[in-house]
Amino acid sequence: MNTFIPVILSGGAGTRLWPLSRQSHPKPFLTLPDGENLLQKSLRRAAAIPDVQEILTVTNRDYYFQTRDAYDAVDSREGHRQLRYLLEPTGRNTAPAIAAAAWELQESFGPDTILLVLPADQLVQDLPAFLAAVEKARELAQAGYLVTFGITPGWPETGYGYIEAGEVLMAEGSVLGHRVRRFVEKPDLARAQSFLDAGGYSWNSGMFCLRAGIFLEELANHQPALSRALGQVLSHGRRQDDYLELPQSFAQLPDISVDYAVMEPTQRAAVVAGDFGWSDIGSWSAFGGLLEADAQGNQVVGEVVLEDAQGCIVHSSERLAALLGVEDLVIIDTPDALLVARKDRDQEVKKIVAELKRRGHESHALHRTVHRPWGTYTVLEEGPRFKIKRILVKPGAALSLQMHHHRSEHWIVVSGTAKIVNGDEERLIRTNESTYIPAGTPHRLINPGVIDLVMIEVQSGEYLGEDDIVRFEDRYGRTPA
Amino acid sequence: MNTFIPVILSGGAGTRLWPLSRQSHPKPFLTLPDGENLLQKSLRRAAAIPDVQEILTVTNRDYYFQTRDAYDAVDSREGHRQLRYLLEPTGRNTAPAIAAAAWELQESFGPDTILLVLPADQLVQDLPAFLAAVEKARELAQAGYLVTFGITPGWPETGYGYIEAGEVLMAEGSVLGHRVRRFVEKPDLARAQSFLDAGGYSWNSGMFCLRAGIFLEELANHQPALSRALGQVLSHGRRQDDYLELPQSFAQLPDISVDYAVMEPTQRAAVVAGDFGWSDIGSWSAFGGLLEADAQGNQVVGEVVLEDAQGCIVHSSERLAALLGVEDLVIIDTPDALLVARKDRDQEVKKIVAELKRRGHESHALHRTVHRPWGTYTVLEEGPRFKIKRILVKPGAALSLQMHHHRSEHWIVVSGTAKIVNGDEERLIRTNESTYIPAGTPHRLINPGVIDLVMIEVQSGEYLGEDDIVRFEDRYGRTPA
Repeated sequence: MNTFIPVILSGGAGTRLWPLSRQSHPKPFLTLPDGENLLQKSLRRAAAIPDVQEILTVTNRDYYFQTRDAYDAVDSREGHRQLRYLLEPTGRNTAPAIAAAAWELQESFGPDTILLVLPADQLVQDLPAFLAAVEKARELAQAGYLVTFGITPGWPETGYGYIEAGEVLMAEGSVLGHRVRRFVEKPDLARAQSFLDAGGYSWNSGMFCLRAGIFLEELANHQPALSRALGQVLSHGRRQDDYLELPQSFAQLPDISVDYAVMEPTQRAAVVAGDFGWSDIGSWSAFGGLLEADAQGNQVVGEVVLEDAQGCIVHSSERLAALLGVEDLVIIDTPDALLVARKDRDQEVKKIVAELKRRGHESHALHRTVHRPWGTYTVLEEGPRFKIKRILVKPGAALSLQMHHHRSEHWIVVSGTAKIVNGDEERLIRTNESTYIPAGTPHRLINPGVIDLVMIEVQSGEYLGEDDIVRFEDRYGRTPA
Repeated sequence: MNTFIPVILSGGAGTRLWPLSRQSHPKPFLTLPDGENLLQKSLRRAAAIPDVQEILTVTNRDYYFQTRDAYDAVDSREGHRQLRYLLEPTGRNTAPAIAAAAWELQESFGPDTILLVLPADQLVQDLPAFLAAVEKARELAQAGYLVTFGITPGWPETGYGYIEAGEVLMAEGSVLGHRVRRFVEKPDLARAQSFLDAGGYSWNSGMFCLRAGIFLEELANHQPALSRALGQVLSHGRRQDDYLELPQSFAQLPDISVDYAVMEPTQRAAVVAGDFGWSDIGSWSAFGGLLEADAQGNQVVGEVVLEDAQGCIVHSSERLAALLGVEDLVIIDTPDALLVARKDRDQEVKKIVAELKRRGHESHALHRTVHRPWGTYTVLEEGPRFKIKRILVKPGAALSLQMHHHRSEHWIVVSGTAKIVNGDEERLIRTNESTYIPAGTPHRLINPGVIDLVMIEVQSGEYLGEDDIVRFEDRYGRTPA
């Protein structure tokens, strides 16, 4: 059998799930009520397919460490598979991403390699049905089809594209799928309803199964310019450890979808029915659907007091929320931003994000907790001439050897052990011990232990911006060339 | 002219203004949109009356320091008047409070002293009209009447008691007020409407003007038991500095209102019209009324994004709030609790507070920032075995000399200068310096400077409760006897 490689496409800001999903922490990283995020669920889904030895993830290079951290938590449960990454300098829609994946895997395993493309911001709730559908798609891909997965519409959704099925495709007396008659872009409500009434239409899920060589051939036929440019770009990638970092020129490739670039023009498109409890969690209502409702239809995460509230979705993990006499609201509370929206308008949350962007408010992009290769930091408080952070360093991780011109730092270890380089001195600081780093002193923070190191940092100085940092040495490649 | 003393009655939890108003920080301390709180406004109102040399405040002893701090900010603008306090061990309704004030002022200035009783949780927007009404009330009190202030009803409110006016009281050809025909307890809507239709009814504001001796006489006539018990209780008060602290036995006095105890049975009741822009800020709607509305009728404090929102009241001073497609909501955000309520149900906020009390949730009573005689502390973060506080010490103030059995403390000064006693050592710590207090070491923190001292305290230990404190010496009388 041909080599079979799941390709997880991870990206997209998910602005409709603000304020939990933000540019620095997009939808694939959104923790679901069961404690796992969509990216981890995608990995587990991919790993559950038989004969999968390796999984490729295409993501932005800014999310590389955060993605590895997320996978690490899953891998320990699911057994190790080879993980490989394609890192984009900037998101470039699905055609360049899938083409790059096909090119990379053709290089490694030959043109007959079959790719299963899985967007990381989707949820599949019926795993056996998913595996059965993948099996059918695999057979069709083997036979040379470019296979999409079509979701049987539950309602006349206007937020998805539709696929009209054509001639049935069988093998050994059983239906595998259908040829695609045509793709339809997001319809209006009347048209969507007519598709439901007519039958034979399904939602375009964005999942694909295809042979690398055939996909690249079709790309060359229908998008010759993109195809040629891609070869150029990929030959300049920087290969290191488990990833191929695509060069800055990747950002010049056309920003087009795989549907538009290949699936619509090709004669080889097929569709397999994907009735496996699919959802793209495209709104807070969809998120609420993952939560059990109480007798009044309220779906709640966190400590909430409900006084005559009905049909509300509440996510408030760090603060008490009290509702009185309200109905059909979405209330999402985060440490630095609160959303209160009418439930049936939740598709418009992106308008809020656009307005925040216009105002230059950092909550459109950043969370108060910021992920770094070595762990996280959370700003607890800022004031004139001081800033307080909680810093978490993963076991074995280290911050860069660095220096600040304008601020000094007090460090107090509240959990774990820190190895500190402070000027010429190097020493261990244990729980409940502290040290002081004067401005202008090169210093480094390392967690030499096997449990998380948690530290409180109190910064003091006339300028406390994150850009007052001189990095001398960094194991995550963040020193200037 | 008789001595004239404004008496500010400060107390009451103001549960309808949760989560901003709480037991530890009740309605009189609520900061209004103009930056001043109701208590400060009450003081300024009292101080604006001609010939006022002294002002008495009756409050709970827990609010003594917080009250003085609030007044200090006003005094600097308004010129100094003698301030005196009656401190209750527990709130006991208006009859015991006003009786205690009358008794105390009769002791000091004789029975002819005129008291002007002002509840501290009310707002008066037309000061000249207020002063004119007080002048009339003063004349009537002088003549022996127990005078109430009646507010001309703007609508058939069911939340207030009503006063029916009787025979007109004149002096030198002009109307001073009326005798009171009767007091009516909170009516239902139909009855309230009938009062409006009939005319001659006003809202009972809870403000009074009366002569100490006459009030105490009437109290003895109509509440002989309370009158006798009061004398007993007051003789055991502890007089110190500028206050008389009432003994614990005060809590055994009957919990009755002055209306019920004296005003209703007496033949000396009079009412003066109080058309001076009175409000008791009894709900979030009333609070919203103090804010300018935008074109969509939204009344907002803080950084708020409004996307098609109408008629909402939003108070979010520390976090961004985004509203989408909602109308007529009250949204009040605080560091540890959020309220989202339908505006026309805002009288029911007290139900939320009752539920929190039932659950034992501390947000019904405490704010994250806690007031102490020496300043404030704010818990920034709590975790296993650590707690981080921001501590603000007022100029010249000092914490008690204390010791903890189970926790050590790191102190970092971020603003101002600290004088620190740490075991046998005493030294100054300046901005950006730190010190360490091991568990079991007696220590003390003093602000010797003239600006606020702001410190970050990182506590570490196996038990971090506020009750792990041994006080050796305290200038605020908090050491065990």
